[in-house]
Amino acid sequence: MTARPDKSFFEESRTDIARQVSEQMSKLDDGSTLPLNTRIAIASRILSDEGHGRTLAGQITARAAGENAFCTLPFDTGFADARQSVVLRINGSMQVLEGGGIPNPAVRFHMWIYENISGVNSIVHTHPPFASALSMIGEELVVAHMDATPFHDDCAYLPHWPGLPIGNDEGEIIARALGSKRTILLAHHGLLTIGKSLEEAVYLAVLFEQAAQLQMRARAVGAIHRIEPALAKESHDFLLQSEFIQATFKYWSRRALATHKDVLT
Amino acid sequence: MTARPDKSFFEESRTDIARQVSEQMSKLDDGSTLPLNTRIAIASRILSDEGHGRTLAGQITARAAGENAFCTLPFDTGFADARQSVVLRINGSMQVLEGGGIPNPAVRFHMWIYENISGVNSIVHTHPPFASALSMIGEELVVAHMDATPFHDDCAYLPHWPGLPIGNDEGEIIARALGSKRTILLAHHGLLTIGKSLEEAVYLAVLFEQAAQLQMRARAVGAIHRIEPALAKESHDFLLQSEFIQATFKYWSRRALATHKDVLT
Amino acid sequence: MTARPDKSFFEESRTDIARQVSEQMSKLDDGSTLPLNTRIAIASRILSDEGHGRTLAGQITARAAGENAFCTLPFDTGFADARQSVVLRINGSMQVLEGGGIPNPAVRFHMWIYENISGVNSIVHTHPPFASALSMIGEELVVAHMDATPFHDDCAYLPHWPGLPIGNDEGEIIARALGSKRTILLAHHGLLTIGKSLEEAVYLAVLFEQAAQLQMRARAVGAIHRIEPALAKESHDFLLQSEFIQATFKYWSRRALATHKDVLT
Amino acid sequence: MTARPDKSFFEESRTDIARQVSEQMSKLDDGSTLPLNTRIAIASRILSDEGHGRTLAGQITARAAGENAFCTLPFDTGFADARQSVVLRINGSMQVLEGGGIPNPAVRFHMWIYENISGVNSIVHTHPPFASALSMIGEELVVAHMDATPFHDDCAYLPHWPGLPIGNDEGEIIARALGSKRTILLAHHGLLTIGKSLEEAVYLAVLFEQAAQLQMRARAVGAIHRIEPALAKESHDFLLQSEFIQATFKYWSRRALATHKDVLT
Repeated sequence: MTARPDKSFFEESRTDIARQVSEQMSKLDDGSTLPLNTRIAIASRILSDEGHGRTLAGQITARAAGENAFCTLPFDTGFADARQSVVLRINGSMQVLEGGGIPNPAVRFHMWIYENISGVNSIVHTHPPFASALSMIGEELVVAHMDATPFHDDCAYLPHWPGLPIGNDEGEIIARALGSKRTILLAHHGLLTIGKSLEEAVYLAVLFEQAAQLQMRARAVGAIHRIEPALAKESHDFLLQSEFIQATFKYWSRRALATHKDVLT
Repeated sequence: MTARPDKSFFEESRTDIARQVSEQMSKLDDGSTLPLNTRIAIASRILSDEGHGRTLAGQITARAAGENAFCTLPFDTGFADARQSVVLRINGSMQVLEGGGIPNPAVRFHMWIYENISGVNSIVHTHPPFASALSMIGEELVVAHMDATPFHDDCAYLPHWPGLPIGNDEGEIIARALGSKRTILLAHHGLLTIGKSLEEAVYLAVLFEQAAQLQMRARAVGAIHRIEPALAKESHDFLLQSEFIQATFKYWSRRALATHKDVLT
Repeated sequence: MTARPDKSFFEESRTDIARQVSEQMSKLDDGSTLPLNTRIAIASRILSDEGHGRTLAGQITARAAGENAFCTLPFDTGFADARQSVVLRINGSMQVLEGGGIPNPAVRFHMWIYENISGVNSIVHTHPPFASALSMIGEELVVAHMDATPFHDDCAYLPHWPGLPIGNDEGEIIARALGSKRTILLAHHGLLTIGKSLEEAVYLAVLFEQAAQLQMRARAVGAIHRIEPALAKESHDFLLQSEFIQATFKYWSRRALATHKDVLT
Repeated sequence: MTARPDKSFFEESRTDIARQVSEQMSKLDDGSTLPLNTRIAIASRILSDEGHGRTLAGQITARAAGENAFCTLPFDTGFADARQSVVLRINGSMQVLEGGGIPNPAVRFHMWIYENISGVNSIVHTHPPFASALSMIGEELVVAHMDATPFHDDCAYLPHWPGLPIGNDEGEIIARALGSKRTILLAHHGLLTIGKSLEEAVYLAVLFEQAAQLQMRARAVGAIHRIEPALAKESHDFLLQSEFIQATFKYWSRRALATHKDVLT
């Protein structure tokens, strides 16, 4: 005996289906939210598991809701050993409000982005291996795979490296190059993502490195072709729905917590 | 003193040997079968360990024997945290019969395949890194290694990406492109495998990604050459014997269970 | 205050040094030897950790000293879940003398090698990812790195795949192609190593895959150049001293045992 | 409400910022130092985790402060199973002062470096996979990424392999080729780094392999371009500040200790 769906099932329109899916996804998010320091610590481990935490290069920052403050890791804590109790609270001039240690000096260019682009509540900047390799060959991130569609018309490119990102010049340059996009490939340097939420910035950073990995492996063989813009846009919008981002972040969180028990200390 | 085999051992014909081997393999399978939800959960972890579970993209479905129902994971459960207790039971119109949550909307195209191709009892669709990279360069999977012979004359290719696989159009396109083959490479997208059993679909998905890995690494150096069709066919048939598939799946299961104890919760 | 060596230290001849080193290495081996079934199980885990155990393809066999018998894993036990208690004892006609299950049918070509090449006490045949990729591009293993010198004038090449290695034909072909060398690259297939001891065959298999990895990565960029034969030969002989092989195998064993406690069950 | 930094924050000069950062970093180092044998054991595990300990090739040595002695691992202990209790103490003629076993014979060329280059207190020599692959293609390490700037004008190249590094000739050749630089790529062989401290030599070895990884992946796609010398130099000097090295080494140490508890036995 076979399992036969109703005939009508196979005749539903794409528009109706997309609406249903969005409705269903909206129920996935139970609205529960862990404290920001916990989410920063978990996010750091997610990034580390995906290859973003091999050295002390890279930073994650997120705005504390309703406060004139940001959370970040201390300079000498890498993504691989982030724990919720060490997360710093700093103000917009990088002064420490709560916690021990100092922020990474490159957090300065995060401040340029928060100051100049509205609606940004979190920034991730890292040097993972494939995005870093991509940053060395003078090519932009190309949307040639469904999983790269979140970067369709949403990934800027800074073709010159302005030097160590500790000064104000670099902040100005990066903020300007980012423009109205959510992500940027920084030549000779790495990736940067912004988000309305911490989860969005982390989601984009993980997908960026995975997309760079696909691109570098494919390009070692030959040419790759962009996905047709209309299809890329539809997929971009679908994969960047906040419910989908939240669900994915929670998946990665469970995976990280299963391996790294100490993140909650 | 050396260990000398009987002279007759070295004179047995290939036909006799192949028959003996099949007889011996048939005794390997003790017929024991775990419940479908357990097998789905273990299969998911096998897939995750092989790189198929990096995001929430990808789905595994299997027909519940003798029932108008399919098992699958909830949308927001990734392969890496599948557990037997969370597996959903849905009907052919994707309505949930048992379990909490919703299926991945892309399960819709699975239903098109179950509806249009007879004898299919399980489907795996994933975006693992090497098959994804292969899907970006406009090349088909090539049978140039013994381990890729299960794909000899058994791997279709869809050269265009029809867009996000949530609608009915995509189901129709993928089912048609698959034709009478067990597997398909979906351009800009990933892989899909079908099986008479869950084990067969999973076995093919794991081997597909491994074959794509070999191909991408070899093609980064130069040209590769197809195995002679007659030899590829013999190997294809041997490696797809159900006893061999079951033995391999059990090996991978033991490996997965040794690492992921929580799969049985 | 600096640590200054005696002036004479810097004037010792290469010949004197090499002799001293050999003397010192000979003291490393305390002569202790675990039972063969335990060594087979540990060796299997070493191979698995190095990428040789992704499927049930591949076999390891070793002659039981002073007996008309060989040890190997059962067909349905992969390298990744080998345990000392499951190791089979078979005779030269592949009949099981002790243990449950059957040997891998491809062990037949091992018997051709034991029969036709003197002094062989162990054989490893596997399909690891880089040697497999190398086997697809029509190139031989090239000695272009010190770590590949064990293969100097000691790695044969079979440029054609004779088909599934279950018959007697394949045994004859592989044994002949191997000739007087310790290792062979089998096109479209994988690697094979032989050894006077189990440790030697495993050592060569691990180094083969590592050498193939270096070669594939280097060749993706450009041409590579062979090491000068005289230097390669000196290094070959040094790195294949039995004391060095034993020391390396013991290192890998400790590493495997630290992770895989169940190997001794 | 947004978190607004003081206007003056965005107007600080690069020089002022760099000074502040150095001041802040200097407070990171609490001056605490573990005993040398413990640091050697931890450093070995860090190197192993980064791919430097796949065989017994490679050595780490460090000068015991104020003593005519060096610490190193016994020949038959690999980086992956270093423990503080097995670390050897040897004199400059490679005679064992404390501990069981013998040093790796290649430690001889370390002695040539200690003898001929002033200020060297630690040396790391390894054959990790990407630096080894790079060593096979006749190219030098290129500074085309910020993370590779520690090698700006600080990485020598020995284009010929003098043979097994056990004799005095090799020591002389390597010491001369190194010249006044901190690191060297040894063709057909691997990498070598020196440091004023153990931490510096290890830091450079880990970054070297990561830089080689980026370069090999990028070069498989196409050409790469050097970073402008002035920017590379500024970054080189910043990333090689001893406080930054110490902070990074401590990060890696915590990561290694979390996984490898037995290193302290």
